[in-house]
Amino acid sequence: MTFTPPVAEQRFVLEHVAGLADLSSSDRFAEATPDMVEAVLEGVGAFAAGEWAPLDRTGDTVGARWTEDGVVMPKGFPEAYRAYVEGGWGTIGAPAEHGGQGMPFAIATAVLDTLGAANMGFALCPTLTVGAIEALMHHGSAEQQAAYLPHLSTGAWTGTMNLTEPQAGSDVGALRTRAEPVGDGRWKITGTKIYISYGDHDLAPQIVHLVLARTPGAPAGTKGLSLFLVPKYCLNDDGSPGEANDVRVVSIEHKMGLHASPTCVLSFGDNGDCIGELIGAEGGGIAAMFTMMNNARLNVGLQGVQVAERATQKAVAYARDRIQSARADGASREPVAIIEHPDVRRMLLRMKAQTQAARALVYLAAGNVDRATLGDADARKRVDLLTPLAKAHGTDLGNEVASLGIQVHGGMGYVEETGAAQHFRDARITPIYEGTNGIQAADLVGRKLAMDNGGVFLAHVEAMRAEASDAGLRALIDVCEEVGRRLMTADVDDKLAASYPFLTMLSVATCGWLMERQGRIARDAEGDPIFLAQKQAAARFYVEQIVPEAMGLKAAASARADVLYAIPADAFAA
Amino acid sequence: MTFTPPVAEQRFVLEHVAGLADLSSSDRFAEATPDMVEAVLEGVGAFAAGEWAPLDRTGDTVGARWTEDGVVMPKGFPEAYRAYVEGGWGTIGAPAEHGGQGMPFAIATAVLDTLGAANMGFALCPTLTVGAIEALMHHGSAEQQAAYLPHLSTGAWTGTMNLTEPQAGSDVGALRTRAEPVGDGRWKITGTKIYISYGDHDLAPQIVHLVLARTPGAPAGTKGLSLFLVPKYCLNDDGSPGEANDVRVVSIEHKMGLHASPTCVLSFGDNGDCIGELIGAEGGGIAAMFTMMNNARLNVGLQGVQVAERATQKAVAYARDRIQSARADGASREPVAIIEHPDVRRMLLRMKAQTQAARALVYLAAGNVDRATLGDADARKRVDLLTPLAKAHGTDLGNEVASLGIQVHGGMGYVEETGAAQHFRDARITPIYEGTNGIQAADLVGRKLAMDNGGVFLAHVEAMRAEASDAGLRALIDVCEEVGRRLMTADVDDKLAASYPFLTMLSVATCGWLMERQGRIARDAEGDPIFLAQKQAAARFYVEQIVPEAMGLKAAASARADVLYAIPADAFAA
Repeated sequence: MTFTPPVAEQRFVLEHVAGLADLSSSDRFAEATPDMVEAVLEGVGAFAAGEWAPLDRTGDTVGARWTEDGVVMPKGFPEAYRAYVEGGWGTIGAPAEHGGQGMPFAIATAVLDTLGAANMGFALCPTLTVGAIEALMHHGSAEQQAAYLPHLSTGAWTGTMNLTEPQAGSDVGALRTRAEPVGDGRWKITGTKIYISYGDHDLAPQIVHLVLARTPGAPAGTKGLSLFLVPKYCLNDDGSPGEANDVRVVSIEHKMGLHASPTCVLSFGDNGDCIGELIGAEGGGIAAMFTMMNNARLNVGLQGVQVAERATQKAVAYARDRIQSARADGASREPVAIIEHPDVRRMLLRMKAQTQAARALVYLAAGNVDRATLGDADARKRVDLLTPLAKAHGTDLGNEVASLGIQVHGGMGYVEETGAAQHFRDARITPIYEGTNGIQAADLVGRKLAMDNGGVFLAHVEAMRAEASDAGLRALIDVCEEVGRRLMTADVDDKLAASYPFLTMLSVATCGWLMERQGRIARDAEGDPIFLAQKQAAARFYVEQIVPEAMGLKAAASARADVLYAIPADAFAA
Repeated sequence: MTFTPPVAEQRFVLEHVAGLADLSSSDRFAEATPDMVEAVLEGVGAFAAGEWAPLDRTGDTVGARWTEDGVVMPKGFPEAYRAYVEGGWGTIGAPAEHGGQGMPFAIATAVLDTLGAANMGFALCPTLTVGAIEALMHHGSAEQQAAYLPHLSTGAWTGTMNLTEPQAGSDVGALRTRAEPVGDGRWKITGTKIYISYGDHDLAPQIVHLVLARTPGAPAGTKGLSLFLVPKYCLNDDGSPGEANDVRVVSIEHKMGLHASPTCVLSFGDNGDCIGELIGAEGGGIAAMFTMMNNARLNVGLQGVQVAERATQKAVAYARDRIQSARADGASREPVAIIEHPDVRRMLLRMKAQTQAARALVYLAAGNVDRATLGDADARKRVDLLTPLAKAHGTDLGNEVASLGIQVHGGMGYVEETGAAQHFRDARITPIYEGTNGIQAADLVGRKLAMDNGGVFLAHVEAMRAEASDAGLRALIDVCEEVGRRLMTADVDDKLAASYPFLTMLSVATCGWLMERQGRIARDAEGDPIFLAQKQAAARFYVEQIVPEAMGLKAAASARADVLYAIPADAFAA
């Protein structure tokens, strides 16, 4: 059950992928010196390993519990959350003008990487708070920011995102929750939201719900949506939480995993008295939602990294411990640790390589978020392009690695007590929420390829091509360009039919580019020889074995939709 | 929760892949006429859909329960098991000379396909009984056969396989359970076995444990093992179950899935009074084990088919039902069933194609089992070659399809009540038990490639090449030959390092060959146009999109072991 924060790896990726040196050379991020970053990573690592990791199993086995008085978190969670707030770990990336430390998003990403690897279900809570902070920063009024941000920045209060409704899963335009003006600038909210992560809990004295709702006379579809802030407790005149608002947690879902995280059905305005405030302009809900969601999508991609890291650590520990069978080479008849057997070792190296690849992809996007903050418009576009890759491919890799983690454990992996199964169950939600991975793929081939008439995509291809040296990797980059160009002008159904394999190819090309770079740097760098050697091995494995796999997707990424519609829907049941 | 037995598909595959017409033209299988097969498949389909499928959720939510008096199955299971025995569904493939119907193994496979798709956890019980029957048929004495086979053939008594011990997972040679002669031809057994599926239950009045144990003075390793039959109840003189034997069910595992199936820790001889009989020769345990295991491996591959079939049916039903979002082509703004959206449809067609591919692979092996029974020595070798493919790739596909099934359901897939999650959890054991898929890959590149100096493998390649027409498929077959030839003479570590990707490539080539054939036959055949159209679409999707993916594995299947050993074991934790 022990967890070792991957500090050396995080520093390496922050430096060589996220471009930390560039960031800290700016005025805004001048405090993010190597020493500071080291202190933050070591500090949160010690905290996460000591306080959060031991609760990971409790989160799974006990889980959040619904009661009439609200959701009760498992024993130990409220104390561990308080320690998180008091340690200031929530403030790292929060805005300096509102009580945060204003560090680069890339560093906040690394901090959340560690917290989530220690306890993925727990770390989802701060992840959502960050989304609420982003929405308020970009769309809230000065008063709203003053009233809420200082508390959200420390994590003393937590945030939620209320999008989904029973009749509208991925179809945000079909939302029905209503908001009616009360006359004093406030609004009354009525409706039911589902799948609200941390929609209720006993970790904090206040929960700030951000709710998409429809105002009177608003047009149908997404354009009629506005974003509302609905506090669990209405604020007193002094800004402290006062009387309970009319928000009720109806139930929590019985999920396959991520049991620590209460997934709530929330009912707003059962008694006609749910008070909210408009965030931003009326009708600006969808824009505000994307502000929250883009951040959340990167952080869900990061959950893929988190679960992959933890699953890999557990599998490596097991494989070094478990003695079974002699090596097949016949040199000795003594049984060895299973990590010595080639196929187990292949699984472990694959797990390491895929974890590192996912981390590089997400940190690359995070570094570009910071560049965008510093005013680099191209970086903002790169983030937009990379977000669906980071979310979808990051979570796909989290699932693959967690599954390999079970396989390394053999029969023990299927027995719940070992803990490997938890990661597998936990991971499975990540390709679904915050926009299914299919939606990410649609976003990539739709909106993202079209940016600047393909210019953003082609610039990314050129950046990869300018650095990549392996012939297979260069070939994959070429194929990505070829397929991407074709998809830009393809029929919409053909685009969508090819979207998922194309997303995977482009993600692997991007990871291959970053892994090759890291391997090259590790070869020439000075430092811990063990760390540098494993980095080179992981990079080599990735470039030599995983990159060619993605070439196998060319046919699917080039296929048209007609094969999918060659039979009527009914025939799928034949 | 409804389940529709895939009778048309099964008949098609039995005819065009398993070669049923050839079998029924033999004297031995003359009764397996098309009419008879139709009746059997329809009959077991109706039974499974009516009696077993409704218990699938109960099996998961209630599960088998340990008590001091033994394992108690969930409500409804004992009655449903009795109905299975009374319906004669256990007897289909059982030997005619011992109360069975002596039908081809391929038909028994189709029957078990249906039972397991209806209720995978339940169907594991008869699956194990078949293993016990096989062991007794091939290695038991006439007396043992007479005493046990009539009861096992009907399923009135059930069987178990007792291999694994705590200190010896995949390393059978490390087993310690002891057997000491009592003097009257019987033996006393002492030891503890783990992971014993259906090691205890209340479905039947007798359980026949087949136990690997070590006799006094036996050599170390696998050569010192013998197989013993240990009944739960010692037989009375009239052959009926009498006094309890000294076998205790210590506990059952708390598993991620397959909750209906009690996975037992069995303690033999706690009171020094566990009586068993030797099956076959002393020291012949490993040979007898392989008899059981080869059959069981095909049947575990079949579990991949079962779970894939059920997951696909559930996902298709959901996707036809769930209305969400308009088509992206803009032709209408009306929301449609999600099966109309290209990426959902891609997932569903992939599920169908992969399910059919897995079924073809397993039924191909099953048909060859029957050919071997009819005296075709080459067929026996083909079974040996195909067994690791059917087990490993069949179960890999079961997992992939079950995961896609969750994805099609979106958020609902992660909520346990929907049932999609159960299939995902159930499926995950199949790549582990009956020899992990890594062991299957080792078996392929070790023993199986070496058969007849590569002749068996090359004959399989030639059979594929003689029929395959798609250029991509032919290219994959060529690569399989090239890689396979290299692996025959490769260093043992290099063989093992490449074993898993090679197994996948060869499996996909084999499935591609069979899918292409089915698509061609469906194009020219007369019959239900809906069935034939979906078969062609699935075949086309497989050949056009999945076959090329496997080409992407060439690099990994050609890679040497050195990358895995480029770093010391310690470095995996860095």
